[in-house]
Amino acid sequence: MSRAVARAHPNIALIKYWGKQDERLSLPATGSLSMTLDIFPTTTAVELDPRADADTLQLGGAIAGGVPLERVSRFLDLVRERAGIRTPARVISHNTVPTGAGLASSASGFAALAAAAAAAYGLSLSSAELSRLARRGSGSAARSVIPGVAVWHAGDDANSFAQSVPAPAFSMVVATVDAQQKVVSSREAMRRSVQTSPFYPAWVTSTAASLQDMLAACRAGDFTRIGELTESNALRMHATIQASWPPVRYLGAASIAIFDRVAALRAEGVETYATADAGPNVVAIARPADAAAVADALRPLAAVQVAQAGPGVRLLGDDEAAA
Amino acid sequence: MSRAVARAHPNIALIKYWGKQDERLSLPATGSLSMTLDIFPTTTAVELDPRADADTLQLGGAIAGGVPLERVSRFLDLVRERAGIRTPARVISHNTVPTGAGLASSASGFAALAAAAAAAYGLSLSSAELSRLARRGSGSAARSVIPGVAVWHAGDDANSFAQSVPAPAFSMVVATVDAQQKVVSSREAMRRSVQTSPFYPAWVTSTAASLQDMLAACRAGDFTRIGELTESNALRMHATIQASWPPVRYLGAASIAIFDRVAALRAEGVETYATADAGPNVVAIARPADAAAVADALRPLAAVQVAQAGPGVRLLGDDEAAA
Repeated sequence: MSRAVARAHPNIALIKYWGKQDERLSLPATGSLSMTLDIFPTTTAVELDPRADADTLQLGGAIAGGVPLERVSRFLDLVRERAGIRTPARVISHNTVPTGAGLASSASGFAALAAAAAAAYGLSLSSAELSRLARRGSGSAARSVIPGVAVWHAGDDANSFAQSVPAPAFSMVVATVDAQQKVVSSREAMRRSVQTSPFYPAWVTSTAASLQDMLAACRAGDFTRIGELTESNALRMHATIQASWPPVRYLGAASIAIFDRVAALRAEGVETYATADAGPNVVAIARPADAAAVADALRPLAAVQVAQAGPGVRLLGDDEAAA
Repeated sequence: MSRAVARAHPNIALIKYWGKQDERLSLPATGSLSMTLDIFPTTTAVELDPRADADTLQLGGAIAGGVPLERVSRFLDLVRERAGIRTPARVISHNTVPTGAGLASSASGFAALAAAAAAAYGLSLSSAELSRLARRGSGSAARSVIPGVAVWHAGDDANSFAQSVPAPAFSMVVATVDAQQKVVSSREAMRRSVQTSPFYPAWVTSTAASLQDMLAACRAGDFTRIGELTESNALRMHATIQASWPPVRYLGAASIAIFDRVAALRAEGVETYATADAGPNVVAIARPADAAAVADALRPLAAVQVAQAGPGVRLLGDDEAAA
């Protein structure tokens, strides 16, 4: 095969990935846990192009160069090295995630790219191998390879990949308050946390402990405990970030208003908890039966979409692959 | 003298006091630095009452019992023990600080009570001794004894008091967004931080380092550095608090809107920085020449009052003491 198309979805972490132990290998300082969503897919086609001198990238219909092309090209180098093929590729990607606003478009992007590139270059990879590969493009892409709830293990290159975790069903209400580009990229903010936040070492150890608690809560099907750990871990990540020098604040007034509304809903008996990645958007988790009520309550405050557990990355057949 | 009246003002910390090393002695885990304001005074009269069986307390014109009376009475015991007098006292206090909303009414309250009680029971105390005494009532009261910018030293009972610090003149713009009682008292939240926040140990060490930097910035008259350290330390304190289990969030949407407006003003060339105590209110610091512009900018978001460096606690003469 010299052309393949893959589709992947973003994931939202309940226990956050924040901080690398190895930048080049994209190895996280701690494990993390997420749910892959069923909304905002990225569809990516990779086609080998023997007549080209270099890789080309089309993002959302526009030719992309600069840093985005470099990142894709460096990633394709990993695939080519493994496949023993030096042919450049044409990459065409369509992303439905609002870019750079705290929802992980890079996760779905590199998960889809990993699967499409591996197939186009003739590699046959297990789910764990694909997750390891996607990790090299963008850490959290390791998790978007896996359907539903996934744990991404810390560790060395060989064993840092994501795996499925049995968990009770819950929904995510994605509240988008600001789809603009962030002032400080999460890559830069993560680096700043590692280098300057006095809370970073304790963030790493406390997150490792929370991950173990979260895995136990998932096993036990204890939604309350899952929710409490989710909200606490998110607040700790943002605490670590805002303790950096100079400080970075991702949660704006509109974000905090959603955290407050979520807390008020809990007080009213609708059990929901909030989390937020490195951006202003907030995601509420709730039991599936409560998701519509949570979405209704948040709609006056933000653009709202309800997501369920989504599929892992998959290759599209010719009939589906209009990308 | 068997009756004395004293007046003290609240103070706002630039380097925060958050966490005790000794609850009974009210010894802080680290030093802190504040400015005593020239607004929101508390005026307190203490009169020995040989015919009474017990202390009585009047707060803002109403008879107070329960915990407030117990705290006052326990504090008076310290004074009586030192004076060798067992006579109960009648305490009448008028407070102009919005109670329990993140501005330190307990600081001005116990500073005024310390000075009035010491005088009424015939103790003659130095400023350092008065600061040590006020500390036993409420930690940050140690600082309201001192005029203008004050450092409150950590240490043991003997050397944990506040002292004046030479500093450049600056103003404080107090933005009151919510004068309601807090859901979690700062006493309880402080205890929770010490016991459950994984960031608490690093908060203590990083604050000790920031205090040294702040003292150097005050000596150098470097307002920019003073402001940067102030905002960073406030964000780190709130980070420590929100990392507690269960989490506590004091900064609501309205508070964050003020932090954002302050950052926007900086970007527009008006140099101002934000801080917040354990509550939703925000205080912006600015050079005196910029204070009115900052107040104007924040007025659409909050009730605003501009404060300058205020006096330390002082006894009022009979002509002033209408309390």
